[in-house]
Amino acid sequence: MPSIAGLFFYMSEKIKKLNVSKPLVLDCKKTVKDFPLAYETYGNLNKNKDNAILIFHALTGDQFVSGTNPITKKDGWWVTAVGPGKAIDTNKYFVICANVIGGCMGSWGPKEIDKNTNQAYGLNFPVITIKDMVKSQETLLDHLGIDKLLCAAGGSMGGMQLLQFCATFPNKTFSAVPIACSTNHSAQNIALNELARQAIMADPVWDNGKYLKKNIQPKNGLAVARMVGHISYLSEKGMQEKFGRKLQEKADYEFSFDADFQVESYLRHQGFAFVERFDANSILYITRAMDYFDLSRQFKGGLVEAFKNQKTKFLIISFSSDWLYTTKENKDTVIALNSAGADVSFAEIKTDKGHDSFLVNEPEFLKTLKGFIDSMHIKFKNEKK
Amino acid sequence: MPSIAGLFFYMSEKIKKLNVSKPLVLDCKKTVKDFPLAYETYGNLNKNKDNAILIFHALTGDQFVSGTNPITKKDGWWVTAVGPGKAIDTNKYFVICANVIGGCMGSWGPKEIDKNTNQAYGLNFPVITIKDMVKSQETLLDHLGIDKLLCAAGGSMGGMQLLQFCATFPNKTFSAVPIACSTNHSAQNIALNELARQAIMADPVWDNGKYLKKNIQPKNGLAVARMVGHISYLSEKGMQEKFGRKLQEKADYEFSFDADFQVESYLRHQGFAFVERFDANSILYITRAMDYFDLSRQFKGGLVEAFKNQKTKFLIISFSSDWLYTTKENKDTVIALNSAGADVSFAEIKTDKGHDSFLVNEPEFLKTLKGFIDSMHIKFKNEKK
Repeated sequence: MPSIAGLFFYMSEKIKKLNVSKPLVLDCKKTVKDFPLAYETYGNLNKNKDNAILIFHALTGDQFVSGTNPITKKDGWWVTAVGPGKAIDTNKYFVICANVIGGCMGSWGPKEIDKNTNQAYGLNFPVITIKDMVKSQETLLDHLGIDKLLCAAGGSMGGMQLLQFCATFPNKTFSAVPIACSTNHSAQNIALNELARQAIMADPVWDNGKYLKKNIQPKNGLAVARMVGHISYLSEKGMQEKFGRKLQEKADYEFSFDADFQVESYLRHQGFAFVERFDANSILYITRAMDYFDLSRQFKGGLVEAFKNQKTKFLIISFSSDWLYTTKENKDTVIALNSAGADVSFAEIKTDKGHDSFLVNEPEFLKTLKGFIDSMHIKFKNEKK
Repeated sequence: MPSIAGLFFYMSEKIKKLNVSKPLVLDCKKTVKDFPLAYETYGNLNKNKDNAILIFHALTGDQFVSGTNPITKKDGWWVTAVGPGKAIDTNKYFVICANVIGGCMGSWGPKEIDKNTNQAYGLNFPVITIKDMVKSQETLLDHLGIDKLLCAAGGSMGGMQLLQFCATFPNKTFSAVPIACSTNHSAQNIALNELARQAIMADPVWDNGKYLKKNIQPKNGLAVARMVGHISYLSEKGMQEKFGRKLQEKADYEFSFDADFQVESYLRHQGFAFVERFDANSILYITRAMDYFDLSRQFKGGLVEAFKNQKTKFLIISFSSDWLYTTKENKDTVIALNSAGADVSFAEIKTDKGHDSFLVNEPEFLKTLKGFIDSMHIKFKNEKK
C-alpha cells in the first residue's frame, strides 16, 4: 500500500482522465474549466448504445467499481454487484463511473495542484455541491458519445447524486436505481458528518488543510472520522451479531486501554487502514456537499417541481436496518416521485446489515437490482427500435 | 467558569469528602485504601432512617444532583427530578450522591495526586470497574449511619451501578429504579465509547495521559468525544424536530466549513463547553468501566444468579426513542429479574427525547418516578414498624 504521498506520483499513469474544458458554474458562483475528471469503464458500449450504465459512488468510493483497484490493489468497491455475470453484468452492459470532484482519486479535488499557486489547493478548493459533482460527470457522457443511459445507479451519496442527476437532466437516463439515500440530510446525518469533520480539524497536523505542503496526513483525526462512518454503516443488531462482547485474542479483560474487545480492534483497523488511501480534506469537502444537498431547496415548488416531467423509470431501494438513510426517508422520495407523476417502484430489503447492505453480498438486493436492470434493458431496446 | 487548572485549587473547599479507610480490593486485583470519595446530600435523614435515597450518576455527572453546582455554578444535573417538591422530594427524602471513583469532582480519580510520585496519576490510575465504583460508595452508607436505603435510583451508567449495587448488596435498599440502562454494553455502545476514547487519544496534547503535568487539557480531542455523546443521547426524530436543517443565524449556505447548520453549532458549543468542566482521562476510565460492565459475567449462573435472593423491589424504566439503551435491553433486565423471582415492575415512557429523557422535563417519567418512590416509602415505613 503506498503512503498518501506515494499515491500522488503514480496515480496519473493508471487513471483515465477527461479534461473538462467546458466552463462549469459552481453553486458557490465560481466558474471553473479545464479540470480533470477521473473515470473508469467496464465492458463495451454496443452499437445501439442502449447498454450504458452510469454508477455514482459514495463518500469514500472512487471510479474503480469492479475488478481490482489498480491503486489500492484491493477489490473495487462494488464487486458484489458489478462485474462479469454479476447483477450489473459487465458482459452485457457498459459500466461507467467517475471519481467525484472534491475526491482524491484523480478528479479535481483539494489535493490537486492549483496552477495559480503551484501548491495543493487545500482549503482554497471551492466548497462544491452534489449538483456540481453531477454536472461535471454529465460531461463524461458527451465524451463517451452517449445520448441516453440505460440506467444510472448509486447508493448513499451515490443515490443522492443520482436523484440530483435526474432532477437536473430529466431525460438523460432511461431508468434509475437510487439506493439507501434521501433528498436531503437529516439533522442526525449532518451531526455525524460534523463529528467526522471536527475529528479531522481537531488534529493539529491538519493545520487548516495545509498538511499537504509538508507531505503528511492528519492520520489520527482522519482515522477517528472513519470510525464514525463505520459505526453508522452497521446496524445495532448487525454489530451485535458480528462482534457482541467478544474479546480480541484474549481470555479476559486486560484492565488497560488496549483493544480488549473485537469491535474496538475492528474500528482501529478500519480507521488506520483508511488513512493510507484517502485525503482528509476530501472528507471535509464531500461531507459538506452531502450536508448541503437539499433537492427541494433548489426548486421553488419543492420536490414535486424537482421531479416534474421525469421520463426516467425509478426503482428506490431501502434496507430495513439502515439507520443512516431509513426506509422512511427513502419512502419520502417515492412519495415525492409519485406526486410528480413519475414512474416509480420501491423495494425494502429486510436485512440486519444496515446501511452497508448495498456493498455486501445481500442476495435479495442483488436479485432485485438485476431483475430491474435486465427488464429495463428490454424496454429501452424496444424504445430505441 | 474556571479553567480545568483552576478547578483543582478550590474544589476541596466546596466538596464534602469521605476518606475511605477500609481497604478495597479492585477488580484488577489492586488493593487501595485511604482514598477520597466526594459526595453531597440534600434534605435530612429522619429519625426512623426510612427516607434515604441514594442516586448514582452517569458518565459525565457528579455528586451535585440538585440545586446549584458550586463548582460550575450551573444547575445540578438532575434538578428536573430532585429538589424541594420534585419527584424525588428533598423536603421529604434524604438524598445522597457520590462522585464515582475514576471521576473528576473530588473523588479518587486520574487527576488526583498519587502520593507515591507527587504527580497526578494520569494513566497510572488503575482501570476501575462499575463494581469498584459501587463498593466504594457503599462505605458512604456506613459513614452516614444508614443500614438500609428507602430507594436507590440512577439512569444510564447510574442504572448500571444500581444493578451492580443490588447484585453485590442484595439487602441494602428497599427499592430500586434503574433507568435507561442494561446489564452489559452492546457492541454498538462499546464502539461509541471507543470512538470517544480514540478522539481523546488522537489529540497529541493528551500525551499518554500526562497532560496534567503541563497544566493543560487535550481540549480538541475531548470536545470531539463529547460530541459523540451528544449525538447518541438524542433520538433521530428528536434531533430532527429540534434542529432539522435550520441554519445558524444566516439566510443561506456560506460555502465554508463554519457552522452553517444549527446542529453543527450546537455540537461545537457542547463540545467546547465540556472541556472546561471535565478531565479527559476520566472519560477514558469511566467509559472503560462501562464497557467492562457485564453482570452475567460475574456470576457462574449468569443474571439469574446475579439477582437471586433479591429483597429489593424494582421499577425499570425505559424510553421508547432511546437507541443507546433500548427498551429491548431494559426489558431483558426485567426478564432476568423475573426469572430470579424478584419483585419487578416495568414502564416504557413514550417520548422522542431519546436517552436524555431522564434528564429533561418529561412529565410522564417524573410522575412514574414520584408515584413509585412515594408508594415505596409507605411500604418501607410499615416494614420498619
